[in-house]
Amino acid sequence: MEEKRVRVIEIKKSVFENNDRQADQLRQELREKGIFLLNLMSSPGSGKTTTLTRTIEALRGRFRIAVMEADIDSDIDARKIAALGVETVQLHTGGMCHLDAGMTRQGIEELTSGHIDIAILENVGNLVCPAEFDTGAARNAMILSVPEGDDKPLKYPLMFQVCDVVLINKMDVLPYFDFDLERCRENIAKRNPKAKVFPICAKTGEGIEAWAEWLAQQAGSF
Amino acid sequence: MEEKRVRVIEIKKSVFENNDRQADQLRQELREKGIFLLNLMSSPGSGKTTTLTRTIEALRGRFRIAVMEADIDSDIDARKIAALGVETVQLHTGGMCHLDAGMTRQGIEELTSGHIDIAILENVGNLVCPAEFDTGAARNAMILSVPEGDDKPLKYPLMFQVCDVVLINKMDVLPYFDFDLERCRENIAKRNPKAKVFPICAKTGEGIEAWAEWLAQQAGSF
Repeated sequence: MEEKRVRVIEIKKSVFENNDRQADQLRQELREKGIFLLNLMSSPGSGKTTTLTRTIEALRGRFRIAVMEADIDSDIDARKIAALGVETVQLHTGGMCHLDAGMTRQGIEELTSGHIDIAILENVGNLVCPAEFDTGAARNAMILSVPEGDDKPLKYPLMFQVCDVVLINKMDVLPYFDFDLERCRENIAKRNPKAKVFPICAKTGEGIEAWAEWLAQQAGSF
Repeated sequence: MEEKRVRVIEIKKSVFENNDRQADQLRQELREKGIFLLNLMSSPGSGKTTTLTRTIEALRGRFRIAVMEADIDSDIDARKIAALGVETVQLHTGGMCHLDAGMTRQGIEELTSGHIDIAILENVGNLVCPAEFDTGAARNAMILSVPEGDDKPLKYPLMFQVCDVVLINKMDVLPYFDFDLERCRENIAKRNPKAKVFPICAKTGEGIEAWAEWLAQQAGSF
């Protein structure tokens, strides 16, 4: 398996005032090209990159996948993903706390390795700002990890409202935290009754298959 | 111990363009009034409120403490702190991802219970935006919890650069995570060689005394 080189893109602030319109336009263009864009959001340290690694392994061979890694400064995550042999562009946000549709488009335009079925945007680690900006993705996903607590849907409502799916990660450490999975499901449902919820452990691979199957279905019919 | 009522303040966006100047002015005014303002920052779910509870218990009787709880929407944290009998104002940021000096001033002006020695601002749970805005605090503190990972200083550099002290929380779960305390100290030092580092466990109280003593020293001579 050939490790891909990570290209680093210095993202410029969008010049467009109307992000929603730009997002709808990008979504439409991606649909026409057959590229399913997933926007993956979470707090810092919830396990986005490990989850992404597992997801890529689960879908390898069925879909051609590319990844855009938004990171304020480092390229730690991008190098991990590129090591899987997946085309990866690193979007340096220069301190910006989120990506909008214009920035996402800059990333998409850098994906040059031929046809892509699924493009995954690993957004900046932040439960607040990324929820406010439509990136043009077909679906929004978020990860909440067990150590963060089951009350997060009450405290960061918008993030849970905009997500189609919530992955509850680090299920292996459930015995060591005051985290009640049923209460968490109820709190998520208060914000977003339609959200799909998958408990997973990216470290061990537990639960990844069900989530990857859901993603495959979405990518196959969007 | 009488539980305090939580007052809720709807924070307005600052009209001031020059936040740094406003922050310096607020810092100067607070110094003249003898109020030590601590700005406490972290990711969602790192244990800010539990740490704050332990810190208040450790300093109770020596300092008159008041708390400003920034929260996007809920009042869960503010009610926990008010239950300690400490004056607490809830700053509703209305979706905003950080506090600046103008917003902090709105909170300070709502603290009405007589002289305060230490005012603690629990900032919005976010490792990105709060680092960019000087609140006017005398000192900046942050919490990094073990489950978030020891690489966070590399990935969220500005937050570590602006903090005088880093509390490493949830030390009780160290055996269950790939977190190397020494590597974390090295990563923090790369960003900010002057930062004080205190490993703590807010849940059990481990390490709180050393941190509270440092805080008492700072508040006694700022």
